[in-house]
Amino acid sequence: MGKASGISKSDIEARLRETRVARLATRDERGRPHVVPVCYAYDGNAFYTPLDRKPKKLGGELARVRNIRANPQVALLVDHYEEDWAGLWYILIRGRGEILSGGEERNKAVELLRKKYPQYASRELLPQDATVIRIAPAKVVSWGGRAR
Amino acid sequence: MGKASGISKSDIEARLRETRVARLATRDERGRPHVVPVCYAYDGNAFYTPLDRKPKKLGGELARVRNIRANPQVALLVDHYEEDWAGLWYILIRGRGEILSGGEERNKAVELLRKKYPQYASRELLPQDATVIRIAPAKVVSWGGRAR
Repeated sequence: MGKASGISKSDIEARLRETRVARLATRDERGRPHVVPVCYAYDGNAFYTPLDRKPKKLGGELARVRNIRANPQVALLVDHYEEDWAGLWYILIRGRGEILSGGEERNKAVELLRKKYPQYASRELLPQDATVIRIAPAKVVSWGGRAR
Repeated sequence: MGKASGISKSDIEARLRETRVARLATRDERGRPHVVPVCYAYDGNAFYTPLDRKPKKLGGELARVRNIRANPQVALLVDHYEEDWAGLWYILIRGRGEILSGGEERNKAVELLRKKYPQYASRELLPQDATVIRIAPAKVVSWGGRAR
């Protein structure tokens, strides 16, 4: 095991920009935790995760939107697992979620997402009018992570 | 994009046993979501995640224990990301967490964890008297996943 070390500020920024998947935790109207994997983009200020058209039949997307509308407090986890546990790290972002269904910021978010994920080049998967969840971080903590 | 399909029951069982990392969502005493990556073992019935001695300085472990003591409802996410989005899948387990600080079940859980993770061969990292969180699933939903 490596020794615990905070991740440096510039490293946190880089990992938040580069990591390909995060997990978004919300709570439902009865207060129970809910968590799903999400694609996201980070502009150095807020996080954006789209309601894209990956086919989902289980109400997962609806659940997270419903949850955020009922209670905007969310947690977003960006982490890394490998078998060499000296390399483990995570960054936990806690803050407020907001549903963006239009406007300048939504449009910018869709562009950012298309830049990060070539998979979104198909506009079918991420249409220009996609709904996006904006996450404004209130508190960020990090753990682990050998220096790069 | 692959088409959405439930994962077959036997596939769910296999993925739950084999996947190396999960994310555990709880809520804090003020109701805010919290989520961390966890190692876990699954015995076909319940999930066990240890409070091991990976050095953590941020109160993450204490937070999850404190949260479960205040509110046992948890969500455990087992998922897979790859750049070919046809291969994406997740399994979301919602249920109750319980802190096991001793007893037969705790001992069995520590053995299961040592079997799954060679990293725990060092008893320093996972002592025999480790505290373990037991997660009893109440509801399991799955999404995605090409057949294997």
